[in-house]
Formats: sequence, C-alpha cells, structure tokens
Amino acid sequence: MDEDINILILSCGTRNKIVQYFKKELAGKGQVITTDCSELAPALYDADKHFIVPRMGEEGYLDIILSICKKNNIKAVLSLIDPELSLLAENRQGFLDIGTMPIVSNHNVVELCFDKYGMYKFLINNDFKAIKSYIDKEKFYKDVEVGIINYPVFVKPVKGSASINTNKVNSKEEVEILFNQYDNLMIQEFMNGIEYGADVYIDMISNELVAIFAKEKIKMRAGETDKSVSIKDDKLFELIKDFVKKIGFKGIIDIDIFKVDDEYFISEVNPRFGGGYPHGYECGVNIPKMIIKNVSGNINEDMIGDYKEGIYMMKYNEVKIIKGN
Amino acid sequence: MDEDINILILSCGTRNKIVQYFKKELAGKGQVITTDCSELAPALYDADKHFIVPRMGEEGYLDIILSICKKNNIKAVLSLIDPELSLLAENRQGFLDIGTMPIVSNHNVVELCFDKYGMYKFLINNDFKAIKSYIDKEKFYKDVEVGIINYPVFVKPVKGSASINTNKVNSKEEVEILFNQYDNLMIQEFMNGIEYGADVYIDMISNELVAIFAKEKIKMRAGETDKSVSIKDDKLFELIKDFVKKIGFKGIIDIDIFKVDDEYFISEVNPRFGGGYPHGYECGVNIPKMIIKNVSGNINEDMIGDYKEGIYMMKYNEVKIIKGN
Repeated sequence: MDEDINILILSCGTRNKIVQYFKKELAGKGQVITTDCSELAPALYDADKHFIVPRMGEEGYLDIILSICKKNNIKAVLSLIDPELSLLAENRQGFLDIGTMPIVSNHNVVELCFDKYGMYKFLINNDFKAIKSYIDKEKFYKDVEVGIINYPVFVKPVKGSASINTNKVNSKEEVEILFNQYDNLMIQEFMNGIEYGADVYIDMISNELVAIFAKEKIKMRAGETDKSVSIKDDKLFELIKDFVKKIGFKGIIDIDIFKVDDEYFISEVNPRFGGGYPHGYECGVNIPKMIIKNVSGNINEDMIGDYKEGIYMMKYNEVKIIKGN
Repeated sequence: MDEDINILILSCGTRNKIVQYFKKELAGKGQVITTDCSELAPALYDADKHFIVPRMGEEGYLDIILSICKKNNIKAVLSLIDPELSLLAENRQGFLDIGTMPIVSNHNVVELCFDKYGMYKFLINNDFKAIKSYIDKEKFYKDVEVGIINYPVFVKPVKGSASINTNKVNSKEEVEILFNQYDNLMIQEFMNGIEYGADVYIDMISNELVAIFAKEKIKMRAGETDKSVSIKDDKLFELIKDFVKKIGFKGIIDIDIFKVDDEYFISEVNPRFGGGYPHGYECGVNIPKMIIKNVSGNINEDMIGDYKEGIYMMKYNEVKIIKGN
C-alpha cells in the first residue's frame, strides 16, 4: 500500500488559494498541513490540519518544524515567505534525513535572489539584459553626466522584499538624502515599459524546466499584481529557459520581467510561489500537481506554454471567519 | 403574481462579496445586475447580468443608468463608490419616477459625509466627541502653543476618500510645506487609540435604525480593514443611534470610530457598504435581506446587536478568470 503524501506549507499567511489548490490535488492521496505564527492567518483554516508556531526568528523554530514533519509523516515542505526559503535551503539535508523534501532552490541561489545587486552582476556577467543598477553613487553620478542613465531612478535597499522602502527620485540631492539616511542602498534605472511575470517550475528530480506561465501585469496594488492577462512569447520562454539553466533553480520560481523597446529585462526572482500564481493554476498550469508527482518519485514532462493566451485574472477579497477562544 | 425584485449595483469594482450576497438573498425572487466602466471589474461577473457603462463623469451617464433601470425593471439601485452616491441622491426623484428606489441618504447628508471639516463642525455643534480638526493653520499653531493639541498630527484633504494623500506630520515646517503645495487641507489630531467600524442599516420605509454590526479593526492594508473582530457595547450602540437620528441617514452607512481613554470619537462616515461589510454579513447581519424587504414594501424590525461577539474576520485574495475578446 502506498503511503500518504502529506505536504507542509509554512508561513501560509493569506495565501489560501495555494492551500486550496494543494488540498484539491491531494484529495484521497494525503493531507495539507499549514503553519503560521499568527492565529489570524486565514490560510491556516483551509488546510486539513494546522499548527500555530513561534516566529521564524525565534530559538528552536527549526526543531519545531522538523518535529511537525516527523510526527505528520510530511513528504514535502515549502514556505510562502522569503526569509524562510533560506532556512529550508540551508537545512535541506536535515529535512531529507527525516524523509521530507524541501521544495526550494539551493541556498546560494536563494541568497542570490535576495541580493538585488548580486543578481544584476550575475545577469550582466552572463550576457542577459538587466536593469542598470549601482551601489556606488559616485559611479552613478558620472554615468548621469555622460548620459548613460537619467533621472528619475529608483533608490531601494539591496536586500528587501516587494516594493518596501522603494523611492522614485529625481535629483542628486534626493539620492544624497537617502544615502545619508540608510545603509545598503542601490540605485536602479526607471523602466518605462510593460511589466510581465512568469511562474516557473523546475522538476525536483530531473532538474529540467517543465512549466512556464507568462502574464502581463495590468494593475498593481500594495506591491502585488491585482489584474493580469496570460501571454505567450517564444523569445521570453527561451530567455527564461536560458536564465533558469545558468542560475540552477529548483522547484517553484516567480520571475518579474520588464519589456522595453521589444527587449525583455529580468528584474527580480522570488524562489517561491508568487502572489499572482492563482492565475497560472486557473489556466491549467498546475504546479501543486507537479510537486506531488515529484514527491511520488515521478518526473514531470515538459508542458512549457501549455495554456491559453488572453485569459484575464482579477483579484477580489474573500473572507474567512473564525470564532476566537 | 408578484413582480421580480431586480436590483442594480453600480460601479461594482472588486466588491464581489456584496454582489454574491444579493444574489443569494434574491434567489428565486429577482436578479442582480451590475455595472462598471471597466471590463476588468471582477464583481461584474458574479451578477446575473452586467453592463459596461461609460465613466461616471461622462456626459449622458445618468441617462444610461436610468435606461438600464427602466429596461430591466430595477426596483432598487445602489452604488459602491463615493462620487456616485451624490449622483443617486441628487436624482432620487428621477429614479423614483421610473419605479427604482435609490438606496442612499439624502443629498445634503451624503455631501456632509464627504466634507471632513463640515462633519467635525456638525459633531461638536451636536455635543458629540470629535477628533480635533482645523482648516485654519494659524488657529492650529496657537492651540499647539497653549498645549490644546500636540504633534504628530494628520494633514489631509478636507474632501478625499480613504487614506489617499494623508500625511502624518511632526512640525510646523512640514505643515507649511504641505499647505503651500496643496489647497483645501485640514489638520487633524492623531488619535492613539483603538479603531472600530460599524455597519448600520436605517430602514428605507420607517426611517428607523434597525441594524448595527460593530467590530474592532485589527489590521489595515491599503486603507482597508484586513482583519477585524466583532464586539458589542451598549455605549457605542447608543452613540450611533443618537448620531444617526440627528444627522438623518437612510439605508446603509459605514462609520469609522476611535476609542481613546474609554471614550468613542466618530471619525468618518461612508454612506454606502464599507469594505469590511462581509464580516457583518457572515455574522448574520444581513443588510441585503433588509434592503430586499424594504423594496418589497415591508418594514424591518430592530435587530441591533443581534450577532455574536468575538468572531474574527480575515481577508484573502480570491480570483476571477475571464477570457478576453
């Protein structure tokens, strides 16, 4: 008799759709178990079972998660928040030792995704188009003088999630004020183009890229894609394939891309389910199913671009109600 | 045979839950029809029928809405956006003439809700506690000198929706900069307290307040309540009853309230369904049902406070998918 395929989703927060999708795909095959440090994380309540755990930074956190995996016979673990991806990647062997597969890229790859300047250097060193980026403001001022880059530009932390603390600035004075106030900032070219997103799955067994879902972002709200439309473009697919291979991703990644003058520029990578992934799932790009297939020991076949173009996604608020203790 | 009760929801946007609730309550009794100026308003697609209409400000808009009401035998019309409430209130008679009841307060009441300084004057003139507000910055500076008010304060437009362009300021210099940049600003005391919200229904036939659902706001996101918990407090209920009676509201209103040192301060009123209304509905405070009852010619009975305390609401993203043309 086959064993159950139980999957653990850490720091599930408000990502109910991800939990719902896993539950649907696992029906009859295993359970979805969720954790969060807050009882008011609505996605907790869409799982078959949930645990309230300490904050990720607290001592003993990893042991608690490992113990949940052991006791619940967890076959795969994934996280929906950035800092935890490093934790999973760093402790991959510890999870594998108890029979749990962390669905995450290798530690050095995860770290590179969170270092915006490091990613920029990787991109230009590997002949990809990249959004001009500077950590040296004097070099930036020189490039402004000779017209290599112009205001406005973005000033943002080298490490930082979403659009938190990102400032659009128009002058040297503003750059100076920000660099005096904060450490570890970078200056990035303002891209006046169309924004795209791609949800990508790299098979955990074959290490081959097997799925890409690409969409144009139509409207953003609080740093998240609110409305998008599915697109297909072989040039974009080839770029993503090349990029993913060179960097060596594993599992799920979400790539942000700009298109300016018919050229694609890779902007950022989240090595986890992106906030806009439900669009891909609803269009048939079923990454939970691919993860389950991998966990069952089977390789996924290439289904790159296997979805319809011109399908629109719009978000709205759903609510979850619980009774307090 | 009774006629169908068809209800029209204007500018439905992303308020899918409101449309879903009306659809549920109307099942077998009539249709929910929605409008929006954008095909990417997800709530359009939860209705029985929808129409894409011009933007509200465009010429002929009112005639188009009246014509939709006539052709679809609409018994009641409501809007989910602020500017349109004035339009409905101003043209009440035009709608009544074709058999459509606008679910909205009178025009002067709607206008008062959008004039934050006018509302402040109304509150203090009627012996309600109110958040200290100034349109005269010199008077504000004098009050700062004698310690009647202290920094930080909020500087915000007298008319303006949600938290758009609201600045927390700490000094006279910042106040001066903002007043030099923008017209029609007001200065408002920073309230260091707990925020509450109340969903209220005033019967359209009896003009009596029949429902109050009160909740403590736990977490806000992009100006909207993301997590809340239901509460009951007779002192708050009495305050709301008194306020609603003195101002003369009708239909649905959403009130924002601060509690500081055990005293309630009315902060703002939206004379429409608030973004957090689903919490009330899920707890059994069924305003769509009350509207339908009124439209059928029946008066609603008092059910103030008829819900459970300690029920938590948490929002998450749901998605709607459509195929483009």
